[in-house]
Amino acid sequence: MKLENRQWYLHSRPEGVPNEDDIRARSVPLCRPGPGQVLMQNLFLSMDPGARFWMSDRPGYMEPIAIGETIRGSTLGRIVESNHPKFKVGDYAVGIACNGWEDYSLIDPELNEVVRADLGFPVNWHLSIFSAVGLTPYFGLLEIGKPKPGDTLLVSAAAGAVGSLAGQIGRIKGCRTVGIAGSDEKCRWIVDELGYDAAINYKTCGDMQQAIAEACPDGVDIYFDNVAGSILDAALLNMNNFGRIVFCGAISQYNTDDAVPGPYNYWQILARSLTVRGYIALEFRDRFPQAVEEMRGWIDSGELTFAEDIAEGFESTVATFARLFDGSNKGKLMVKIRDGDEPAPTLENIQAAAE
Amino acid sequence: MKLENRQWYLHSRPEGVPNEDDIRARSVPLCRPGPGQVLMQNLFLSMDPGARFWMSDRPGYMEPIAIGETIRGSTLGRIVESNHPKFKVGDYAVGIACNGWEDYSLIDPELNEVVRADLGFPVNWHLSIFSAVGLTPYFGLLEIGKPKPGDTLLVSAAAGAVGSLAGQIGRIKGCRTVGIAGSDEKCRWIVDELGYDAAINYKTCGDMQQAIAEACPDGVDIYFDNVAGSILDAALLNMNNFGRIVFCGAISQYNTDDAVPGPYNYWQILARSLTVRGYIALEFRDRFPQAVEEMRGWIDSGELTFAEDIAEGFESTVATFARLFDGSNKGKLMVKIRDGDEPAPTLENIQAAAE
Repeated sequence: MKLENRQWYLHSRPEGVPNEDDIRARSVPLCRPGPGQVLMQNLFLSMDPGARFWMSDRPGYMEPIAIGETIRGSTLGRIVESNHPKFKVGDYAVGIACNGWEDYSLIDPELNEVVRADLGFPVNWHLSIFSAVGLTPYFGLLEIGKPKPGDTLLVSAAAGAVGSLAGQIGRIKGCRTVGIAGSDEKCRWIVDELGYDAAINYKTCGDMQQAIAEACPDGVDIYFDNVAGSILDAALLNMNNFGRIVFCGAISQYNTDDAVPGPYNYWQILARSLTVRGYIALEFRDRFPQAVEEMRGWIDSGELTFAEDIAEGFESTVATFARLFDGSNKGKLMVKIRDGDEPAPTLENIQAAAE
Repeated sequence: MKLENRQWYLHSRPEGVPNEDDIRARSVPLCRPGPGQVLMQNLFLSMDPGARFWMSDRPGYMEPIAIGETIRGSTLGRIVESNHPKFKVGDYAVGIACNGWEDYSLIDPELNEVVRADLGFPVNWHLSIFSAVGLTPYFGLLEIGKPKPGDTLLVSAAAGAVGSLAGQIGRIKGCRTVGIAGSDEKCRWIVDELGYDAAINYKTCGDMQQAIAEACPDGVDIYFDNVAGSILDAALLNMNNFGRIVFCGAISQYNTDDAVPGPYNYWQILARSLTVRGYIALEFRDRFPQAVEEMRGWIDSGELTFAEDIAEGFESTVATFARLFDGSNKGKLMVKIRDGDEPAPTLENIQAAAE
């Protein structure tokens, strides 16, 4: 066996947005899976802000990535060799936050799930709308936000992959939806294409507290927070009593290791009897199938639309990841590192093709 | 009628701990209740940190007290004249955060409740253990903290009126309880007398994060927060995933109008899938009777003890209120402004006695 496995690994902990000094490529010999092990050929790598967490050594819901370790991430791939009854060669499978930025992953059979490619939609949807990026707003909004018809829902990073879905699901559930985004183009897009009731351009709106108050004359019942920081402070001063803050992301704070002050208006959580709840979608994994089914129905009826932003080629991975933090992506960001071959690849025919 | 009503009113918004420049006494002619109105002679004034909120003009769950207005508060008193079927002369009644620091209050019949004086305990218990100070830890711990046997419960201001009860209720529910207090004497008291498993003196413990880690080797499942500020930051770094933060008070921040940074470790709420929930006990008012009944059982069985700290005399009110913020009170702080007379007072016999 001479097959090589390209990997992106953590060379040094990044300061700010990671670059190819921090995250470097290497090529290592591909190992065959041992007893009980499963080898997957990755087709798509998911680009998620949470990975930036693990690149620092701050404590969190998962261990930091060690120096020298392959970058951890969510991938969709195809099984090329299996010594585990759950997987057979040719299966498509998805692992959330447990595989790696590499050509081949020795996958954890517990944490990866077989997905079907014959359901009438592109298989990569299993890594976008029907994966963390879709399930995160679905469960966050419904389980933590608990929307009631007539509630006002405010969403930050509203044109992002998660935020664009949070707003739409809120609309479907009968909320008045207000989105915050960073350009007039994005603001138009979320109103005209996604059905938000109103949008705020945080770069040009002036006083954010006032802008939210004007866009949300009845106050805010649910704030779906992807950013934390100063927008959270402005939102806190507009929350209704018993409001819910779905703490989904803190993208304003991922690229710093400095101590960042929490919201200056933190005490409003007490004064207004608010709930702030952090979460990751995996908490609700038992109910993923029901969520996928409900979202599929909304997509088929045209109520829910979503965008994917797919970069091509393993080499583009780090540059693509950096785009999460400059606001240039519109929709779920992924890297496609190869097409799925037909017939289903095995290590032997991959080997033969390589020679 | 020549009866006078002494009142403490807001003369100017305090900076820091209020004094008798900010809160001044006056005497006004006593008005008789009009149609539908009820007049109560106050016996006990409850001293609660929340009143400090209303003395500033920051938005909150209640309107600020206006300049010139009598200080709003919880009182226990006796009905001296009633034009409302819910109350008759001689009834004892309690109103939470809706009466005033004054001899006589024209009470809101909706927000005051008749209490019984023949239940075998001092009537003032209706303003302490069986009122906000008891119901706040009861509902906060049980409804928001959701304690399970074996959980680790951390309580700040653990020797205070609320904190001392939160820790005991946690013990009764099977938690390992760790309290944070400001003197070795208080630390001994909460362990020896209240049954806390461990105590931390925040003034002498050195690194607070480390002290919590040592006192809570299995991490913290529930943090009952009465103080916010730097202790909250240290607690956040010790929370277990899915931990609950019962946001009951922020006493470290009540006496400033400056912008106070929120917890620097706010993002741990996301990283550890935490819930932070602010509340006031009134949210659960429908279930007060059940709570009183359960706590009565614990008191009778000796599982729950509580302390009252009762100052004497209307004149002492402002000085007594200030003691909430210097750590000198041990137990529920109240001002007793008079004994309840027998037979039940009416305006006429109060008048006669005054002449």
